[in-house]
Amino acid sequence: MSKPAIVLLSGGLDSATVLAIARSEGYACHALSFDYGQRHGAELRAAELVARTLGAIDSKRIHLGLDAIGGSALTDAAIAVPDQLQEGVIPVTYVPARNTVFLAFALGYAEVLNATDIFIGVNAVDYSGYPDCRPEFIQAFQTLANLATKAGVEGARFRIHTPLIALSKAEIIRKGVALGVDYSLTVSCYSADATGRACGVCDACRLRAAGFEAAGVPDPTPYC
Amino acid sequence: MSKPAIVLLSGGLDSATVLAIARSEGYACHALSFDYGQRHGAELRAAELVARTLGAIDSKRIHLGLDAIGGSALTDAAIAVPDQLQEGVIPVTYVPARNTVFLAFALGYAEVLNATDIFIGVNAVDYSGYPDCRPEFIQAFQTLANLATKAGVEGARFRIHTPLIALSKAEIIRKGVALGVDYSLTVSCYSADATGRACGVCDACRLRAAGFEAAGVPDPTPYC
Repeated sequence: MSKPAIVLLSGGLDSATVLAIARSEGYACHALSFDYGQRHGAELRAAELVARTLGAIDSKRIHLGLDAIGGSALTDAAIAVPDQLQEGVIPVTYVPARNTVFLAFALGYAEVLNATDIFIGVNAVDYSGYPDCRPEFIQAFQTLANLATKAGVEGARFRIHTPLIALSKAEIIRKGVALGVDYSLTVSCYSADATGRACGVCDACRLRAAGFEAAGVPDPTPYC
Repeated sequence: MSKPAIVLLSGGLDSATVLAIARSEGYACHALSFDYGQRHGAELRAAELVARTLGAIDSKRIHLGLDAIGGSALTDAAIAVPDQLQEGVIPVTYVPARNTVFLAFALGYAEVLNATDIFIGVNAVDYSGYPDCRPEFIQAFQTLANLATKAGVEGARFRIHTPLIALSKAEIIRKGVALGVDYSLTVSCYSADATGRACGVCDACRLRAAGFEAAGVPDPTPYC
């Protein structure tokens, strides 16, 4: 029987690739998505489509009141999404403690399913400067996971898999294409319209387009 | 100006005492409660009353879909709340990764408010055997907090305060009484009725009643 794993799935390019990698490694994948008041609801519809297309066993969506906390351009309508990144500055699209919250839920879900493997598409190369995408954060969460849970106390050893952490966007895309990911289904844009079409100008769009170009893969993204 | 702090407030006896302690230490307290599909909704109403009575600056309630995950007698109607604890066994009232999820949200909220102090009423003495109430879990979360956040990267040092961790239930009650906590407002029972009246037989009720007796304080709990 396949080993169960939780795969955090946003509907974006990175997490779709992670799901394909987890499947290729033989895991029985349970996709987990979050509705957290993010502006791009098209991402959530994309997540369901991606989960189905790439052979996840099931997909679950959890509502989180992160918008009640605010503090990010992605959850607070009063903060504008910027077109350009500033070198060395953590951008306003940073959502306070987002990956900590996501991994905490994934951990609880893993424990309920008797799973010890959690996959997350964090990336420390082409990334936007988010602190909770760094290897030292992931390592600290893994330590926490074993202390936080009944399963950990009983001897289970949780593993947070980050197969993209050292890959460039182009390498991620090439890996996904080799594994059959249909990137036209994924949504990365911070300001995508209701049908999932991308703006082409936000920093997520720029990183994505540059990735396809560097990978030598035609960009399948539907733009507005 | 007072230093801001986040206080996790459940509406139970322990967290009410924590709020009183944080206030007595001079913190400007922002109460944070969670609606996570727990059976005892009376607890949430109690949390609001306690926040107001004990001088919190404001109180926020966040909806979490923990019930979508299940796996606990507190969030899954298919699992019965037991009357008696078994020695050395983590009970079915354990909610997978609950304190990890709660602290993750508190961390995000703290970052938005420029706060670095988080208070939580975990207790490792009279406790029910939950792994996420142990000092080593709290220490691991504090380490994680500094790695997980923009504030941490910029030099902030988060502190998770656990003023009850080494106290017996009787010591907690005596401390709270000295600080003016009105425990008749708090709800600990896992099966409280809609008005907050306690069943008197579940393990939370037994621990609470024994605490009042040991403290030599008349039990103000409204029972069914």
